[in-house]
Amino acid sequence: MLYGALEAGGTKMVCAIGDEHGHIAERAVFPTRTPSVTIPQMIDFYKSYEIEAIGIACFGPIDLIPGSATYGYITSTPKLEWRNTDIVGPFADALGVPVGFDTDVNGSLLGEVTWGCARGLQDVVYITIGTGVGGGVMSGGRLVHGMLHPELGHMLIPRKAGDDHPGICPYHGDCLEGLVSGPSIERRYGIKAAELAERPEVWELEAYYISEALVNLILTLSPQKIILGGGVMHQEQLFALIRTDVTRMLGDYIQAGPLNDMESFIVPPSLNDDQGIMGAVKLAMEAHI
Amino acid sequence: MLYGALEAGGTKMVCAIGDEHGHIAERAVFPTRTPSVTIPQMIDFYKSYEIEAIGIACFGPIDLIPGSATYGYITSTPKLEWRNTDIVGPFADALGVPVGFDTDVNGSLLGEVTWGCARGLQDVVYITIGTGVGGGVMSGGRLVHGMLHPELGHMLIPRKAGDDHPGICPYHGDCLEGLVSGPSIERRYGIKAAELAERPEVWELEAYYISEALVNLILTLSPQKIILGGGVMHQEQLFALIRTDVTRMLGDYIQAGPLNDMESFIVPPSLNDDQGIMGAVKLAMEAHI
Repeated sequence: MLYGALEAGGTKMVCAIGDEHGHIAERAVFPTRTPSVTIPQMIDFYKSYEIEAIGIACFGPIDLIPGSATYGYITSTPKLEWRNTDIVGPFADALGVPVGFDTDVNGSLLGEVTWGCARGLQDVVYITIGTGVGGGVMSGGRLVHGMLHPELGHMLIPRKAGDDHPGICPYHGDCLEGLVSGPSIERRYGIKAAELAERPEVWELEAYYISEALVNLILTLSPQKIILGGGVMHQEQLFALIRTDVTRMLGDYIQAGPLNDMESFIVPPSLNDDQGIMGAVKLAMEAHI
Repeated sequence: MLYGALEAGGTKMVCAIGDEHGHIAERAVFPTRTPSVTIPQMIDFYKSYEIEAIGIACFGPIDLIPGSATYGYITSTPKLEWRNTDIVGPFADALGVPVGFDTDVNGSLLGEVTWGCARGLQDVVYITIGTGVGGGVMSGGRLVHGMLHPELGHMLIPRKAGDDHPGICPYHGDCLEGLVSGPSIERRYGIKAAELAERPEVWELEAYYISEALVNLILTLSPQKIILGGGVMHQEQLFALIRTDVTRMLGDYIQAGPLNDMESFIVPPSLNDDQGIMGAVKLAMEAHI
């Protein structure tokens, strides 16, 4: 069985053909231009293969509400050419196969739960920290959607004593994303995050705020594993700092199995940056059933 | 069909007999003394009826991990006589029926979802604010347990500018519970919360912190409804303040159906303080299946 997989990002579109084991057989990358240019390019790619279904893990915000008039649309994205764009419909029409559809971060989560470091787990959180902060939640083996997909990047967290950086979220100022995204780091220090690798105080503060958010997620969702991806998390020194901070902030209140093994509780993605496209394969498989 | 239901609290034990419609036919209340005194009293009550199963909605912390050696126990409660006490086993042994078991707040949540204001909903949060702060989460129609039941009462939230009350949580100081529980209000003002009803600033600050926690839960769980119970929420002026604060704090970032009707999104319990015992009936029904 072959499945189409699309990891739709604001900069590039990763198109692939995979099988039911998550093996990626073919792959093509297109820059994200306008829908009228880029969607036909992608459809041409998939038409060369006999696929049973296609899965789309998509940048957002997107409409995931079953029965909504704009289900399958990219909605209020700041990327103007793609605002209010039906992304599911054109593939369904042109390829004549079922289309699985979810957020990009849920795609990555699904890839890790199906074939990666969270295989077999039921309660998992995946957070990407990069240009923005996005989150995906699996609870009881099911991706959480609720009335909208989780926007946990905008969680409200306490400020560290003495830090008065206003944060850069246009909606909330110093919410999580406003404090820890790559652009927030750059605004705070006047230097790109990637060039601050040798300044420990940068990453200590970054770890502090990320850890507060993780504590809240642990207290709310009781995950078995938390996966942290995205460009900011390429600063790998963050993992040790975060594990220490989370342990300290929980303050012995919770003693449960996963917390006793922080090295395997708070982890980077395990699929060599293929977690998103592999998750899109899984979305296709689920649409096919 | 008759079911046994127990709402086990640190002060009193509410025992009842209910049917599959949640109708409570008989009820007895026993003060919570020691396990060796109170458990036999309760067993005697249930023995008078032909029940198919019993459901226990229990104060905690409790062990809900299937297969755990101490499943069905009350664990590290500050109520010393009940620490490390098997509460499920004695009822199972004496009554010879299946026993459903969950937290007290999950019981209340289940009552409201089955027979109350959240009937038919799949994604619901129930929070009690009283001596402590407890929370129950239903996601996708399933009570969230994860590696432990949610302890969202200890969520970390930003401090309001100018407020430097240290909070009273022995673990975290100014976490949610440390800031908004009844004892925290009393510590802050030196007067019992119930006697502060006419001081608007008390309830404005209280609403502010509760709202921050609700914003984080909305961003993480996307609930369709949030139910706020417990002694502190008997100050009904809090509801209007909280609805206003949550709307402002979300800052137009999320526009989804339930948020456009705050009056039915953030609500008090609807079952006249029977939500817990009715939820225990439902726990019994689920154990019986």
